Amino acid sequence: MLFFIYSSGVETSKDWSRLATVVATFEVLILFLFLKFVTYPSTSFSEVDDIQYVFYLNVTVMMLVGFGFLMTFQKLNALTAVGMTFLITTICIPWAILTGRFFASVAGNLEEYPGVQTNSSLWSPIELNITSLLQGNFAAAAVLISFGALIGKVTPSQIALMTIIEVPLYSLNKEVFCIGALGTLDMGGTIFIHLFGAYFGLAVAYMIGKPKYTDDAEPSRISDVFSLVGTVFLWIYWPSFNGATAGVGGEEQLLTTVNTVISLCASCMTTFVVSSVLNKKLSTVDIQNATLAGGVAIGAASNLKITPGIAFLVGMIAATISTFGFSRLQSVLEGKFGLHDSCGVHNLHGLPAILGSIVVSVAVLYPTTKGDVIYPKGDYQAAAQLGGAACTLVFALISGSIVGKLLVCISPKNSSRPFLDDEYWTVAEKKI
Amino acid sequence: MLFFIYSSGVETSKDWSRLATVVATFEVLILFLFLKFVTYPSTSFSEVDDIQYVFYLNVTVMMLVGFGFLMTFQKLNALTAVGMTFLITTICIPWAILTGRFFASVAGNLEEYPGVQTNSSLWSPIELNITSLLQGNFAAAAVLISFGALIGKVTPSQIALMTIIEVPLYSLNKEVFCIGALGTLDMGGTIFIHLFGAYFGLAVAYMIGKPKYTDDAEPSRISDVFSLVGTVFLWIYWPSFNGATAGVGGEEQLLTTVNTVISLCASCMTTFVVSSVLNKKLSTVDIQNATLAGGVAIGAASNLKITPGIAFLVGMIAATISTFGFSRLQSVLEGKFGLHDSCGVHNLHGLPAILGSIVVSVAVLYPTTKGDVIYPKGDYQAAAQLGGAACTLVFALISGSIVGKLLVCISPKNSSRPFLDDEYWTVAEKKI
Amino acid sequence: MLFFIYSSGVETSKDWSRLATVVATFEVLILFLFLKFVTYPSTSFSEVDDIQYVFYLNVTVMMLVGFGFLMTFQKLNALTAVGMTFLITTICIPWAILTGRFFASVAGNLEEYPGVQTNSSLWSPIELNITSLLQGNFAAAAVLISFGALIGKVTPSQIALMTIIEVPLYSLNKEVFCIGALGTLDMGGTIFIHLFGAYFGLAVAYMIGKPKYTDDAEPSRISDVFSLVGTVFLWIYWPSFNGATAGVGGEEQLLTTVNTVISLCASCMTTFVVSSVLNKKLSTVDIQNATLAGGVAIGAASNLKITPGIAFLVGMIAATISTFGFSRLQSVLEGKFGLHDSCGVHNLHGLPAILGSIVVSVAVLYPTTKGDVIYPKGDYQAAAQLGGAACTLVFALISGSIVGKLLVCISPKNSSRPFLDDEYWTVAEKKI
Repeated sequence: MLFFIYSSGVETSKDWSRLATVVATFEVLILFLFLKFVTYPSTSFSEVDDIQYVFYLNVTVMMLVGFGFLMTFQKLNALTAVGMTFLITTICIPWAILTGRFFASVAGNLEEYPGVQTNSSLWSPIELNITSLLQGNFAAAAVLISFGALIGKVTPSQIALMTIIEVPLYSLNKEVFCIGALGTLDMGGTIFIHLFGAYFGLAVAYMIGKPKYTDDAEPSRISDVFSLVGTVFLWIYWPSFNGATAGVGGEEQLLTTVNTVISLCASCMTTFVVSSVLNKKLSTVDIQNATLAGGVAIGAASNLKITPGIAFLVGMIAATISTFGFSRLQSVLEGKFGLHDSCGVHNLHGLPAILGSIVVSVAVLYPTTKGDVIYPKGDYQAAAQLGGAACTLVFALISGSIVGKLLVCISPKNSSRPFLDDEYWTVAEKKI
Repeated sequence: MLFFIYSSGVETSKDWSRLATVVATFEVLILFLFLKFVTYPSTSFSEVDDIQYVFYLNVTVMMLVGFGFLMTFQKLNALTAVGMTFLITTICIPWAILTGRFFASVAGNLEEYPGVQTNSSLWSPIELNITSLLQGNFAAAAVLISFGALIGKVTPSQIALMTIIEVPLYSLNKEVFCIGALGTLDMGGTIFIHLFGAYFGLAVAYMIGKPKYTDDAEPSRISDVFSLVGTVFLWIYWPSFNGATAGVGGEEQLLTTVNTVISLCASCMTTFVVSSVLNKKLSTVDIQNATLAGGVAIGAASNLKITPGIAFLVGMIAATISTFGFSRLQSVLEGKFGLHDSCGVHNLHGLPAILGSIVVSVAVLYPTTKGDVIYPKGDYQAAAQLGGAACTLVFALISGSIVGKLLVCISPKNSSRPFLDDEYWTVAEKKI
Repeated sequence: MLFFIYSSGVETSKDWSRLATVVATFEVLILFLFLKFVTYPSTSFSEVDDIQYVFYLNVTVMMLVGFGFLMTFQKLNALTAVGMTFLITTICIPWAILTGRFFASVAGNLEEYPGVQTNSSLWSPIELNITSLLQGNFAAAAVLISFGALIGKVTPSQIALMTIIEVPLYSLNKEVFCIGALGTLDMGGTIFIHLFGAYFGLAVAYMIGKPKYTDDAEPSRISDVFSLVGTVFLWIYWPSFNGATAGVGGEEQLLTTVNTVISLCASCMTTFVVSSVLNKKLSTVDIQNATLAGGVAIGAASNLKITPGIAFLVGMIAATISTFGFSRLQSVLEGKFGLHDSCGVHNLHGLPAILGSIVVSVAVLYPTTKGDVIYPKGDYQAAAQLGGAACTLVFALISGSIVGKLLVCISPKNSSRPFLDDEYWTVAEKKI
């Protein structure tokens, strides 16, 4: 059916009909699956659920306000940034509730691990609760990171299609490959979300290729300020992202909070230092992005007793790597390898997630650091963590390449002016 | 006194003196009533109140950031949008604490129903707590919806006056007519807030008439992005709006949360579909507004066990109706009936609230759907719900027409350039 | 070393190297101190900590979104407003955790008072918890208020240096002079934060002098809307600021919430009245700022049973004073005394804090008003409150003057065009 919709050579001006077809078909599927498989919880509700709900809200602010506005820096593409973020998130929430539970059941994951774990049988009813909604948001985070590498170069229907395909791949990697097979745990989503989302998106971006005309991808003074709205909301609520599944009122949630805040303070300060040195001015894009790298890098180890000083150090290193990425590496990747990364997700999510994978692997080597956290692989947990990261990286690159190739095959003739809302939205003023 | 202030023929440039007189007089009244009637609670405070406070905060964000910024789409009227939202909300909070309790006592409403219920005697002290503040915000929501039909066409003093008059009418309808007399219950305010606020405002708008010059009511690229700030915050916190009075830690609050999120996901996706089909592009105003219609429509039934699949379906239908309203119906109402609806509140609040009234009426027919919720009218509750909706609709139209007529009588000569901050605010740049 | 960095006559275009040196040196210090002195809590975590975390989040939103965006009104200086707010906050959080505890230990302050109190010995480990993070934010609030008097007239490196110096002075005044020596208590930070921060900043501003060219300090239509984002978030979360340390689930936290909301409602309404009367229009700067004065003035007395009516009255008076300050006093101070106050912090923080110091001093004279709050000075508490305010005012002015003089000594030649991001940031468009 897809190839019927996407008959080759269709102009971008017809993308609306493909978008409507893809999303409407998906909605009918979701409606059917929800009617058949999703129920309310049988367990009783308590105050703890209301506190968990606050974490859900914080993470949702990060999606729609954080990611959505962070991407508004492209001066004539803000409707696409916020609007497509909105669509992606609302596709992911109901979809990941289904795919997450499905693959967790396939893998037989236990309740204790921070995924959509379950030991109920494969086709039994799915109980919808606050944690389900949170897991939906986490899938949205992975897709939004991928979207960050692509914004301005893909049509709305391509993004909708990619979202629908990426969510089950995300759940498969997390629940079956990492948690189920390898025993990888990842409190803050450093591996499952940031590493997967970034390299999946980069693989798609590589397949789609470098656009010829990129002037419109630049910011304006005003779009830079809108983007900072996203930055500060991401910074503020990041501890909730890392600790959302740590368990209300437990020690791990205290650790995720204080470790994440301290790491983020360090990465903000360090970005100001490194950006100054590398650019002889404060580079706006560095401050909008690299200040958050500490949140990515600390994620997987944020529930461990790594000490506040080490959390600070992790934030410093993460921001240094990230700022180098934005100021030096990105133009090399674009110039030499033809990899055009719209928002620099490689610098904010990719590289700090690799750092974070190493940090958690080292941390689990020390029994005192692990505290009360029970890891399934015991003395071999460091290998399980590194293995999970390697598996995620490889799977993201391969599946992203295939999806990218698919999007290219079914894509319209490339727009001569990418990075513009005008092609797909009713915009207020035509003048560009 | 009012007619003294509003001597006919006064120019809009003198509106500041009327605004100051109306608000100052009102403040003296509030000060007197608070000193005489309002006290602190005698019951002890607990953690539950702190969680309830979070719901208050969420709803307040919806008022000032959500409604306030959603209305900034008019390109030269953002100070009026955010500023008058601010004034309306701060008038409503203390005023509705008084009027809500007054009319709840008049009706003898019981504590169990989600209003400002009380069985204390009419003139006994009012205990000020978090729920009081929340109820103040709910009244503000009704008035802000009405304001949405009027923004740009009325002066600040007219809005202040309308707010002061509308709040007791809102409390009268909710506490005496609906809860007290008819036994209508409404968890998320679909009937009491959205239906009342929308049709009250539309009646006022009809009386005020269609402005001659509407070019300035259009958005700019930047004002459309500011408006999306409002959209996403409304979307995120809407479950808190619907569930704020459901009782912390109770099953109903879980139901309001999951039902509302699922309905909102459906209405966002559906808006992208229907807007594409109707406009052959994504219409920005649809995405800013109709994406939220699921929150309105699910409100009154959100605490019931309608099943997640049905919640999804309600969101789909709500967004379809709402998008049709924006893309087709609104221009008909304006062209044929002279009804100018500044923000399209009929499409976002009016029509989805009618849908929601029908949904809850059908839902209460099924005993299993009602769960543990106790309705006062037993087997006749469906009639009580429909009756409450009908009563609210009629009362809103009648009282709105009278208030609209009053505003016209005392109004200044119409400005030749409506929809501009310049008339009432010190604006940064004069050039338009 | 400082004088080595700041060799006189260096142009502003070299400020990046000084900024990098100052912040990098500071970070190494923090890393060392954190590794040596900061640990995780030994006490167990509970749901109460999660609720406390919500208050931390609310206050952090006030810092980065509230203060940050409130200052974006200068039309070409928004990166400095949001960016330097970000840097200041992330410097203050780890730094004030150390200085607060250090001076609290010096003073031997008890656990019961709302500071970083401790009775552990001076060099024992510091336990990092949610309250520590909150106290870091409070120090940030004081510095951000000072920054408000200076924005546009100082370089990034000067602001970083001032922050590093001001934090220990803030802790010294609060813990040693006020809580320790005088027995002054201050729930909402009226004295410790607003009074100190405002007059410290004003003293620095006086030393730095009035800039010759101030046209660029004016707002644009768009920058005024960004500024209102800050206003409304500050208004919404202010009750959390005043009540953050009141103790989760306790009566004092209920009192701080309802008193602050009612006071803020009154100050918003009153600003609309007084601004109209004084300016014959609504003055945008008044609505952006003076609407918040009730939150400042009620702070120190917000946990007392002053009655809701009196809370309303305090808000009315605070806004009246504040609006007079913006509309009348500020130009006098600038014209006659050469005191240039970039954001008018004297009107929003200085004057309302003086009012608030008087309010709390009167309130503690009445035993019934005090409720269950235990004050260390018994019948002499009114003198202790006034004494603390006087001490804070004098210490802020003296230390601020010294720091201001230092900043002038080491400063670059004054820029001929202050209030512009261009000097220190990579800005999107060069045209001004």
